[in-house]
Amino acid sequence: MAVNEAEETFKRLATLPGVQGIIVMNNDGIPIRTTLPQNKTALYVGLIHGLAVKTKSAIKEMDHQNDLTFIRLRSHKDEVLIAPDKEFTMIVIQKPAIQ
Amino acid sequence: MAVNEAEETFKRLATLPGVQGIIVMNNDGIPIRTTLPQNKTALYVGLIHGLAVKTKSAIKEMDHQNDLTFIRLRSHKDEVLIAPDKEFTMIVIQKPAIQ
Repeated sequence: MAVNEAEETFKRLATLPGVQGIIVMNNDGIPIRTTLPQNKTALYVGLIHGLAVKTKSAIKEMDHQNDLTFIRLRSHKDEVLIAPDKEFTMIVIQKPAIQ
Repeated sequence: MAVNEAEETFKRLATLPGVQGIIVMNNDGIPIRTTLPQNKTALYVGLIHGLAVKTKSAIKEMDHQNDLTFIRLRSHKDEVLIAPDKEFTMIVIQKPAIQ
């Protein structure tokens, strides 16, 4: 996903109902764009980067011809959607669709 | 989820179209029931147990009043659904709904 494409997607997602925050981080876990305060961004990125790296390698270890494309973490309060791509990973935090 | 309830759910899920495997593991990551061969079960449990533990603590760290309820890992070849409960975690491996 090219940077301007990511920028467009970022803006479009940020306006969707229920979206509470969006973060784009690079493959080193450095936030490139965020709609959240810095401390919250750091918390999410710190936790999700490690998770995404571990899951990617887990999928690869189970089948080296397979690749992780998406992670959805559902909790009581919200839903975290993680879309890893070649250079960037997009994280969307949203109100769960079904209460 | 009581054991017999888990057993019923286990049997029902195992017959659903697209389901490739189901594993029930306890909170120590020990498989209790599985429809997969032992080596594959061990691989999935070994990888997913650590992931579920890390994700649970990550969600707790971000908000100690929140709790992880579901993880969905989508890869090119399949989808892994992880439903952690108090005593057991159910893992379903299925063909992705949308190709």
